[in-house]
Amino acid sequence: MPTSSSPKDWLPEPTLRRLPWYLAYVAMLRRDGVEYVSSRGIADAIGVDASQIAKDLSHLGVRGKTRIGYEVAELERELRDYLGFDTGHNAVIVGVGSLGGALIQDRGLQRYGLNIVAGIDVNADLVGTRAGGIVITGYESLPRIVSEHDVTVGIVTVPARNAQEVADRLMDAGVRAIWNFTPFRIRVREGVVITNTSIYSHLAVMYNRLDNANR
Amino acid sequence: MPTSSSPKDWLPEPTLRRLPWYLAYVAMLRRDGVEYVSSRGIADAIGVDASQIAKDLSHLGVRGKTRIGYEVAELERELRDYLGFDTGHNAVIVGVGSLGGALIQDRGLQRYGLNIVAGIDVNADLVGTRAGGIVITGYESLPRIVSEHDVTVGIVTVPARNAQEVADRLMDAGVRAIWNFTPFRIRVREGVVITNTSIYSHLAVMYNRLDNANR
Repeated sequence: MPTSSSPKDWLPEPTLRRLPWYLAYVAMLRRDGVEYVSSRGIADAIGVDASQIAKDLSHLGVRGKTRIGYEVAELERELRDYLGFDTGHNAVIVGVGSLGGALIQDRGLQRYGLNIVAGIDVNADLVGTRAGGIVITGYESLPRIVSEHDVTVGIVTVPARNAQEVADRLMDAGVRAIWNFTPFRIRVREGVVITNTSIYSHLAVMYNRLDNANR
Repeated sequence: MPTSSSPKDWLPEPTLRRLPWYLAYVAMLRRDGVEYVSSRGIADAIGVDASQIAKDLSHLGVRGKTRIGYEVAELERELRDYLGFDTGHNAVIVGVGSLGGALIQDRGLQRYGLNIVAGIDVNADLVGTRAGGIVITGYESLPRIVSEHDVTVGIVTVPARNAQEVADRLMDAGVRAIWNFTPFRIRVREGVVITNTSIYSHLAVMYNRLDNANR
């Protein structure tokens, strides 16, 4: 079973989004048998300024050795621990359509500390079936599942129209974080964490940048 | 066929991410037969400040009428046009695993202006098959597909280890934007747009906020 580690300081979102880049790269190095890497070496590989990297990593309390750099395996462990990927959180997915179905089967989420314990859908044809080894149930099971499995995270992959209602039900059941994949802006109660991963809003940013890239 | 509209001003990313929230809400209102909505009405529904909404919408050149508000159908049209969702861009997906396979079948992308013309994979068992009506081909077809279909966007859903190489191939073939779903930080050439949608980095932000939510 995953173990719980100590709480981490609040960090700004840009920093929290850079740390996984470093992790992805040092994990590659470790699998290639590389033992040490400098912030300059990371910088050259992923195109982030070396001094920015050193500053970001200082939040973790790891420091490179002069002329040798960071120990790769230790840096990978520290990054995974700091980012919470080794802590383990239980989650339910509400809405097992194409995106929800893909997430349920994505082994990557488990590697990054998210353990999906159930899928929930209104579709009677889906209820009682399994996707990626995970059982799909109806809404009436939600409170029981959240309480029995100590579910922290509710993943919302329903149509935009149902997003707020589903989030309300998840919060009623006791989840502490909503991961919203719909384009609807969900309102959450005080103390509940909201994370928006609307791929369509990323498209809007991409199109705008394309319009402005070659002028 | 989608038509091309005039280029839009460069907008900051936070603004570009709020506009799709307004769109999702007014699209719901339009389907419900609502004719007018005020910035206050949008604000109450989605929890964004009304003056922020009015300011954001002023970028589009649409203005609400005093005591009536915005015309819902017009606002939906203007938002879709401004966000580039009606313009139409062709895309290829490289890496047809669980996430790539889900994106290929996601009807939503088409509704938001992204037209996937082919999937590309190294797996010989997949090459020649179809997913969601889209044909899967090998890497050798990439330059031809990009040129024949005037492909603008390359979607990268391969393992992190292969992300940079795949992006290089896509840029060699002539794509103008890379949509990166891997945790690897891809370096792009000048003038090429990079959009990162790493769901694992969103998890890192969520875990950090959970650690800091109840202290």
